Amino acid sequence: METGLLHTFSQDYKQLLENELKSLVEELDAPSIIKESMTYSLEAGGKRIRPLLLFATLDAFGLDPRNGLLAAAAIEMIHTYSLIHDDLPSMDNDDLRRGKPTNHKVFGDAIAILAGDALLTYSFEVVGKIPNEYASPETKLKLTIEMAKAAGTEGMVGGQVADMEGEGKALSLEELEYIHIHKTGKLLKYCVLAGAIIAGATQSQIENLSAFAHHLGLAFQIQDDILDVVGNEHLIGKPVGSDKTNQKSTYPKLLSLDGARDALHRQIKLSKDYLEKTGLDTNLLMELTDLVASRDH
Amino acid sequence: METGLLHTFSQDYKQLLENELKSLVEELDAPSIIKESMTYSLEAGGKRIRPLLLFATLDAFGLDPRNGLLAAAAIEMIHTYSLIHDDLPSMDNDDLRRGKPTNHKVFGDAIAILAGDALLTYSFEVVGKIPNEYASPETKLKLTIEMAKAAGTEGMVGGQVADMEGEGKALSLEELEYIHIHKTGKLLKYCVLAGAIIAGATQSQIENLSAFAHHLGLAFQIQDDILDVVGNEHLIGKPVGSDKTNQKSTYPKLLSLDGARDALHRQIKLSKDYLEKTGLDTNLLMELTDLVASRDH
Repeated sequence: METGLLHTFSQDYKQLLENELKSLVEELDAPSIIKESMTYSLEAGGKRIRPLLLFATLDAFGLDPRNGLLAAAAIEMIHTYSLIHDDLPSMDNDDLRRGKPTNHKVFGDAIAILAGDALLTYSFEVVGKIPNEYASPETKLKLTIEMAKAAGTEGMVGGQVADMEGEGKALSLEELEYIHIHKTGKLLKYCVLAGAIIAGATQSQIENLSAFAHHLGLAFQIQDDILDVVGNEHLIGKPVGSDKTNQKSTYPKLLSLDGARDALHRQIKLSKDYLEKTGLDTNLLMELTDLVASRDH
Repeated sequence: METGLLHTFSQDYKQLLENELKSLVEELDAPSIIKESMTYSLEAGGKRIRPLLLFATLDAFGLDPRNGLLAAAAIEMIHTYSLIHDDLPSMDNDDLRRGKPTNHKVFGDAIAILAGDALLTYSFEVVGKIPNEYASPETKLKLTIEMAKAAGTEGMVGGQVADMEGEGKALSLEELEYIHIHKTGKLLKYCVLAGAIIAGATQSQIENLSAFAHHLGLAFQIQDDILDVVGNEHLIGKPVGSDKTNQKSTYPKLLSLDGARDALHRQIKLSKDYLEKTGLDTNLLMELTDLVASRDH
C-alpha cells in the first residue's frame, strides 16, 4: 500500500532518525553498559510510525521535516522506554520483541529498568537540544509539557495501568477504548501535535489534526488486534494469538473479526475527514493513514 | 544541631511542599491505583533535604522560597521515583524504606515500576506549571534541561549503574566518588542550581554555588556511610550495617571510621568556603550544611 511518495520519504527520514538516535546516545558521558542497552532497543525499531507522523505533519505545513528531527528522536526514546518496561517479567514478561530478545533478556532486569528510565529522562533533554531557529524556548517548553502529558498517568502510563488492571476481565468496548486511547493513542496524537506546535499551527488546525490523530490511533490499535488474530507470526515478530492466550479483551473478540474490520474502516474514514478539514497539503499523512490500515505487521 | 532559624524554616516549607505534592497528584485524571502508589511513596518522605536546599538558595538571594515550590516538588518526585526503582527486587531488593514497606511490597512490582515512571514523567510537566511571574518560559526550559541532565545517564542513573556494576568489587576511592557524585551528588547540585537559575544568578555565583553543592553532596554521602556503621537502626529505618552485609565499598571501609570522619569535615569545610565566596545571605544554607554533617538518620 506504500506508494512511491511515502516510500521514499519513509526511507530517507527513517535513516536520518536512526543516525540521530545513535549519535545522541553515543555522545553521552556514561557507563558503557547503559549506553549499549539504550542503543540495543533503539536499534530494534520497526516502521518508526511515530517519527514519520511528525515528519509528515511538518511536510503538510510546507516545512522541512528535518526541523523536527530532535523532537522525533525524543518521541522514539519514549516509545522505546515504554516497550522495555512493558516487556519486563513483572509486566508482560515478553522474551521477544520484533523477533529479537527483549532488553532484559540481554542485559538483565536491573539494566533494562535503568535503560528505560534513562531514555525517558533523556527525551526531555533532547527536546531542549532543538536549535532555536526551529523552535523558540517557549515552543520547546510547550513540547516538553505536552510530551510529558502524553507519556504520563493521563496518557501512556495511565493506559498501561488500566490495561494491567483489566487483565483476565471481560472489558466493555468503552473500557477497551480507554486503554487504547491512553496506552498508544495519546503518544500518537502528540506526534501530530508536536509537528503542529513546531509549525505554529492555528487553533482550528490543531483541533482538526488532533481529531485526525485520535481516530488514526484507534485505527492503529484495531488493526493491531486484527493482526493478532490473522497476522503472519514471522512478520509480527511475536507469536500470533498471544492476546487470545492471555485472555485479553480485543476488538475482534468484542465485535467479531468482521465487526473489527468495519470499525477499522470507520476510524480510517473519520481520520481522513478531519485531515481534509485542515486545508493543508496532506498527501503524506493520507498515505500514512492508509499504511496503518493495511499494514501486515 | 538545627537552630531556631532553620528549624522554623524547615517546618514551614516542608509542610508547604508536602501539601503541594499531594495536590499535584490528586489533580491527575488517572486510574486511582497509580495515584495511590505515587502518593504512598511521596508521603513516605524524610527530611526533604533537596527541596530545602532549593528553598534556602532562593532565600540566600532574598527571594520568597515559595517561588521555587513547583521546582522543588519536581525534584522530590524525581528523588522518590529513584527510590521506588532502586528498591525493586531486581535492583537493591529492599523491603523497607524509612521504616515502611517499600512501594513494590504494597502495590506489586508492576505498579511500582509504573509509579516511578509516572513520577519521573510528571516532574517535567510540573516544572512547566511554574507561573511565568516566577520563571520565564526560557528559565523553565533551562530547569527541565538541567533536571534531565542531573537525573539521567550523566547523573543519577549513571551513578546507579556504576553502583550496581561495582557491587561485590573492591572499589578505589576514585570509583567510589564517581558513584556518589553521580548517584546522589548531581541531583543535590541541581537543587542549588535550580534556585540560582530562578534567581537569575551571575555566572560566578553559579560556579561557587555549584562547588558548594558538590562538596555538600560528598559530605552527605560520607555521613550516610558513617551512619550505616554507627547509626541507630530505629532512626535510619533500615538495618544498620546493611552496606557491610552487601559487601559494599564505603568510606569507612576504604578510609577507616576516623578517616571517613576527617573526610567528612574536609568536605563540609570546603562547601562552606565556596558558600562564603558567593557574597549572598547564606545563613540558612550554612545551617543546612551543618545539619547534613551532624544528622543522625
